[in-house]
Amino acid sequence: MTTRDEVDYVCGRTRLFGIVGHPIEQVRSPEMITAEMTARGHDAVLVPMHVLPDDFDTLVPQLLRMRNLGGLVFTIPYKARALKLADDVGDQARAVGAINALARGDDGRVRGDIFDGLGCVEAFRRRGISFAGRRVMLLGAGGAGSAIAVAIGFEDPRSLTIFDVDPARAESLARKVALASPGTTVMAGAPTIEGIDILLNATPVGMLADARLPVAVPTLPRELIVFDAIVKPERTPLIELAQTAGCTTVFGREMMRGQISRMVDFFFAS
Amino acid sequence: MTTRDEVDYVCGRTRLFGIVGHPIEQVRSPEMITAEMTARGHDAVLVPMHVLPDDFDTLVPQLLRMRNLGGLVFTIPYKARALKLADDVGDQARAVGAINALARGDDGRVRGDIFDGLGCVEAFRRRGISFAGRRVMLLGAGGAGSAIAVAIGFEDPRSLTIFDVDPARAESLARKVALASPGTTVMAGAPTIEGIDILLNATPVGMLADARLPVAVPTLPRELIVFDAIVKPERTPLIELAQTAGCTTVFGREMMRGQISRMVDFFFAS
Repeated sequence: MTTRDEVDYVCGRTRLFGIVGHPIEQVRSPEMITAEMTARGHDAVLVPMHVLPDDFDTLVPQLLRMRNLGGLVFTIPYKARALKLADDVGDQARAVGAINALARGDDGRVRGDIFDGLGCVEAFRRRGISFAGRRVMLLGAGGAGSAIAVAIGFEDPRSLTIFDVDPARAESLARKVALASPGTTVMAGAPTIEGIDILLNATPVGMLADARLPVAVPTLPRELIVFDAIVKPERTPLIELAQTAGCTTVFGREMMRGQISRMVDFFFAS
Repeated sequence: MTTRDEVDYVCGRTRLFGIVGHPIEQVRSPEMITAEMTARGHDAVLVPMHVLPDDFDTLVPQLLRMRNLGGLVFTIPYKARALKLADDVGDQARAVGAINALARGDDGRVRGDIFDGLGCVEAFRRRGISFAGRRVMLLGAGGAGSAIAVAIGFEDPRSLTIFDVDPARAESLARKVALASPGTTVMAGAPTIEGIDILLNATPVGMLADARLPVAVPTLPRELIVFDAIVKPERTPLIELAQTAGCTTVFGREMMRGQISRMVDFFFAS
């Protein structure tokens, strides 16, 4: 057969995975997780699945009934909402109260866990940056923000301040982190770079064509370390401001690489 | 980016298509339809979707609610059952009472039509073989068989005899063809090669590791033209018997190529 007649990357035996989100165009899991799975020798593909919020509760449980579906990844705005779909929930996900991956085992049980917080910590470790002793400001207490906060809580920071446009959500996350990591100084508070060593954006502000900054500052100090969880665009307005100021910048793509390896382990664990 | 990090055939903007069937491993649409779509410049992939019969009625309507799903292909045993999912049904599908493809237009309406009968006629035409004036025996009055019978009815055969393990199903199809093509000699009858010019298998007998023949004969006459709609294996027990006898053989893959082009037109028509 010529390549004109057939592609070599999908067939009737291919194991199917999906990423569920709204919007969906900005996700990078399809190309990155598919690459990791195929590099490990699996006949598998991860495709985008654009599910509207009103459809989520009826649609996603049906997706899980497809017999050749191996698992799902969840992105904005579904990480908390997906938790109830899991029969078994991992420790990290239980502390966060959200998942970003479901895997269906050979026994038919659906396991859920969350990997993006670990991915963020891993991205910093690969740059030689530790959270220990650092004063951390986290913007966004949604799905990704919650996972990052819980993971950082275990890394012994000097302090962790959490901001969210919904103050109750920030307060609730601060309590979760304090509960999971007793002894960590954690609080909800206004977005600021005063007295902060590491600034983390886990809000969607700056995504796609959004030209806004997630924190209202004209410039940044050079010694600030700036991370943005957004993967598309890679250079968000916040990252551009940080690079202009000469800050060390850590990209959402680096967090994604760290978690992809763990997620593929999880998908093929049973 | 290295190819190790990312694949180049799926991303967040990729339009999603699926083939729904049970079993699913034998289907060839994923590699073939994906090749046709990408050759035409579409960022699209068609993946296998293994749906069990008990799940079909609740699962498939939910699949159609995914916003980036462009369409679905249906194979055994769902071609008749899928008909009711279409808002608008094409003429050929209406005559058959079944569809093998659904497309969702920009207006949200779901159109259904059937392409495998046209694909079979097209496969014969490419070999320079006409059904006109020929005595045709068709085995199987299921989804594919129905589509083939209706399409052949329009080709002015001398006669068309239809067999199915369910005699009522064969009778019902013969009446449909007579209605759609008045003047055609069409009847239900036992499987035979006596007085037959063209033998067509549209049953699943011979699929995968099934070593049976769909018609109980020890050998075939050399002048018989033999077609098998099964695509996996390509050389079914029937095709092997026909080749041994020196018959002209037409393959399921040829029928599939004919219909793939028409199906991709249909998927991207609106």
